Amino acid sequence: MADFIQPDSITTLAATDLPVTYADVEAAAARLNGQAHRTPVMTSTTVDRQTGSHVFFKCENFQRIGAFKFRGAYNALVQLSAEQRRRGVLAFSSGNHAQAIALSGQLLDIPTTIVMPEDAPAVKLAATRGYGAQVVTYNRLTDSREALGQQLAGDRGLTLIPPFDHPHVIAGQGTTAKELIEEVGALDLLLVCCGGGGLLSGCAIAAHTLSPSCRVIGVEPKRADDATRSFYAKTLQTVENPNTIADGARTASLGTLTFPIILHHVHDMVTVSETAIVRAMFFLWERLKLVVEPTGALATAALLEGIVNEPGARIGVIISGGNVDLKQAGKLFTKVTKLPKSQPRVPWAAELS
Amino acid sequence: MADFIQPDSITTLAATDLPVTYADVEAAAARLNGQAHRTPVMTSTTVDRQTGSHVFFKCENFQRIGAFKFRGAYNALVQLSAEQRRRGVLAFSSGNHAQAIALSGQLLDIPTTIVMPEDAPAVKLAATRGYGAQVVTYNRLTDSREALGQQLAGDRGLTLIPPFDHPHVIAGQGTTAKELIEEVGALDLLLVCCGGGGLLSGCAIAAHTLSPSCRVIGVEPKRADDATRSFYAKTLQTVENPNTIADGARTASLGTLTFPIILHHVHDMVTVSETAIVRAMFFLWERLKLVVEPTGALATAALLEGIVNEPGARIGVIISGGNVDLKQAGKLFTKVTKLPKSQPRVPWAAELS
Repeated sequence: MADFIQPDSITTLAATDLPVTYADVEAAAARLNGQAHRTPVMTSTTVDRQTGSHVFFKCENFQRIGAFKFRGAYNALVQLSAEQRRRGVLAFSSGNHAQAIALSGQLLDIPTTIVMPEDAPAVKLAATRGYGAQVVTYNRLTDSREALGQQLAGDRGLTLIPPFDHPHVIAGQGTTAKELIEEVGALDLLLVCCGGGGLLSGCAIAAHTLSPSCRVIGVEPKRADDATRSFYAKTLQTVENPNTIADGARTASLGTLTFPIILHHVHDMVTVSETAIVRAMFFLWERLKLVVEPTGALATAALLEGIVNEPGARIGVIISGGNVDLKQAGKLFTKVTKLPKSQPRVPWAAELS
Repeated sequence: MADFIQPDSITTLAATDLPVTYADVEAAAARLNGQAHRTPVMTSTTVDRQTGSHVFFKCENFQRIGAFKFRGAYNALVQLSAEQRRRGVLAFSSGNHAQAIALSGQLLDIPTTIVMPEDAPAVKLAATRGYGAQVVTYNRLTDSREALGQQLAGDRGLTLIPPFDHPHVIAGQGTTAKELIEEVGALDLLLVCCGGGGLLSGCAIAAHTLSPSCRVIGVEPKRADDATRSFYAKTLQTVENPNTIADGARTASLGTLTFPIILHHVHDMVTVSETAIVRAMFFLWERLKLVVEPTGALATAALLEGIVNEPGARIGVIISGGNVDLKQAGKLFTKVTKLPKSQPRVPWAAELS
């Protein structure tokens, strides 16, 4: 499944050479003010007791469209020129990025075209159309998504907004950590899930400035550990079509912008099992009363499984989103919570804090 | 199923004769400060658009023990005398009141004894014991719970803390509406679920003082409509063992303290179907990313089903708790969301606000 590509020219760069700076995050925050939600931070005495640390959950499942992706999408669209706005934007996504672009376009009166596989769940197609996007479907077996995209972009002059590898997207995602640290103060540790690395790199930039001694750790599924291997190899590694329930982490590799930022500002990368992801989801739903999607539970999983274990530390945990099929989640819970390990950790109802 | 009892002596009283006043709610708030959570208020542009009103959800599912019950229990226990504290307290409950008493006792170093049926779910027994309570079980078929309680209270001098019909419990629950109105300002309407009426009566007292023109509406399951019938008959009505999924509303009747307060300060009572309850739960989980128990979804159900329909109004909705079996909820969702009505209302992922 893993596929090693040739070392890239990307290595450690001076901070001044990085494509996104804290000033960009600050500017994004000003643009997002009144548009994105300042999502709540939750704490739990149960989690603090279990881990011996002080844990702050930044709840981006309460963000507009149900995930942090709105921040980056809006920050990118709002900076387009009048001509670009008039022509409209294009995105490839069947997930949260699609809806983030569609809603941002609706708010800014920018036409949006989203390219989605024709077998994407009907509810996702409907939700994206519900925000006013034009959805163009393709057949995954017979059509080339890239050719279709190039044709659409060429014919209509649409601007492509990628899901993570774009400086405005990265700066927008960084506002998540900015808000968290501004609300709770300096952190010793910040745990962030990692797919293409937009959220992780943006948050690492914010933490570096606002809480300089904070160690930032990225968390991936074991089955989609391209970023972890890239981090240690210092060359970009790829995992094609990883089979993980954390759909937000199924991206094949980091980007050419996110990778150098991660090498520069992230202190470590860790991975968690599929079972650990479901256990963390179950814990967040049952104990914290938060509906969290699998990718959104990655950082919590690293903490609850003891993969990250720093008694006494002040730990920020980003809960990235909550868009999940409730019926499928119910089935996952039935399967995983039969395992012995989770039983003592998740009694039926317990102290919330 | 319904069982009409003789008219009680309770009729409309002057406000000065009521057993709980706003001053009691204010004093409770001071006692709860730093102990109970000031739970967040959430809004949703989707709900506002659907209803044409401005809706504020007070999220007591994030309260300690996962429900508002902690407020009243703590406010009662903290006012006990040194002698009463030393001897300890007793409660009958297999639900949120049990855990509220157990946690309050743990925090105040007061021994707690909870009487629960021996066939209560093992997880509930474990959670209550987890807070340090002594759990005494009885056989529902052969034992008299009341006789057992009297024996325990008599032998050990325990103080019985009832789940709703106690002035300190009512005053504690009233702090929920106090916080909501203080945070969002005056309301036109406040929707509160109703079982024994502790939360409803307390919140109505707070609303009457803090937002005098606010109309307070209690919401019950159709299958457990004793309070609604009592409200209209102006005499206490009883429904024994109502078969509703809203377990917090299965109480047979209002109390001798809550009933007169409700007659005096509540403006209307409405009922919702079992299907409407599950639909509202599903909506809250999927769209607002909140894990809410069936009773906690009652007030939302009245709003989303159009039973309460006041375009332009500022509407407070109390979400009373989130203690629910996740696997059972998954099964409920599978069943109810097959019905046509819920489909257009709950696309997979949508704008949170």
